[in-house]
Amino acid sequence: MNKKVQGVNHIAIAVPDLDQAESLWCDKLGLRKGKREIVESEGVEVQMIFAGDTRIELVSPLSEDSPIAKYLSKNGPGLHHIAFQVDDCAEMIEHCLDNDIKLVNEEVRVGAHETKIAFTHPKSTSGVLCEWVETGE
Amino acid sequence: MNKKVQGVNHIAIAVPDLDQAESLWCDKLGLRKGKREIVESEGVEVQMIFAGDTRIELVSPLSEDSPIAKYLSKNGPGLHHIAFQVDDCAEMIEHCLDNDIKLVNEEVRVGAHETKIAFTHPKSTSGVLCEWVETGE
Repeated sequence: MNKKVQGVNHIAIAVPDLDQAESLWCDKLGLRKGKREIVESEGVEVQMIFAGDTRIELVSPLSEDSPIAKYLSKNGPGLHHIAFQVDDCAEMIEHCLDNDIKLVNEEVRVGAHETKIAFTHPKSTSGVLCEWVETGE
Repeated sequence: MNKKVQGVNHIAIAVPDLDQAESLWCDKLGLRKGKREIVESEGVEVQMIFAGDTRIELVSPLSEDSPIAKYLSKNGPGLHHIAFQVDDCAEMIEHCLDNDIKLVNEEVRVGAHETKIAFTHPKSTSGVLCEWVETGE
């Protein structure tokens, strides 16, 4: 059996205003508040929140040319992507290419905390933007 | 501290064809295959799949007047909603109304396996359609 995907690393929600979203999800709905951090490489600021063991990332653009800014102006806030934990990101990229699953980046990209990441093209994965994350954990 | 939301019960992905989606997510991407079942009350057929401990539901319409059919014809396949586990669905409904979080149903609805469920209006919850699920577990 193929065991490429190990689990869900996080669920990302695009929002225009982190403070407002944090107030909703944490103060009103009771999710646990985690760290807030800037990820320069992706042009975003991220507020981590937790529903039980599941990490949810509230993602907001740092500038108007950030891909998240473009997403928000086209779609409004909402579910942006699911990040799946994989053992080996480079191997996952190769596996996708072998199986006609299109990728946004065909070379490993370095994400926050030195993670190795790649994104699928949603048309290849049931309309879902998937991130493959190798954390080295 | 408010602890209304206990965790993520499942993530739902709307798809037009369950066999095709199951082949992608299980055969190609290695997610674990669970049960397939018809949920008449919601007008859908559901294929459960698992990424580690996280349940993902591939949801497909049983008829053209199912809300999922309307969603697919408007948006195409993609992330449909997140279901959060709550202790008490009726209490959660009341809590939402008290906090100006709009709901699709203001009365508890019975879902699959006698769960008690309610849906938020996405405009109230960062553009995310949220389901509150009381499983009695």
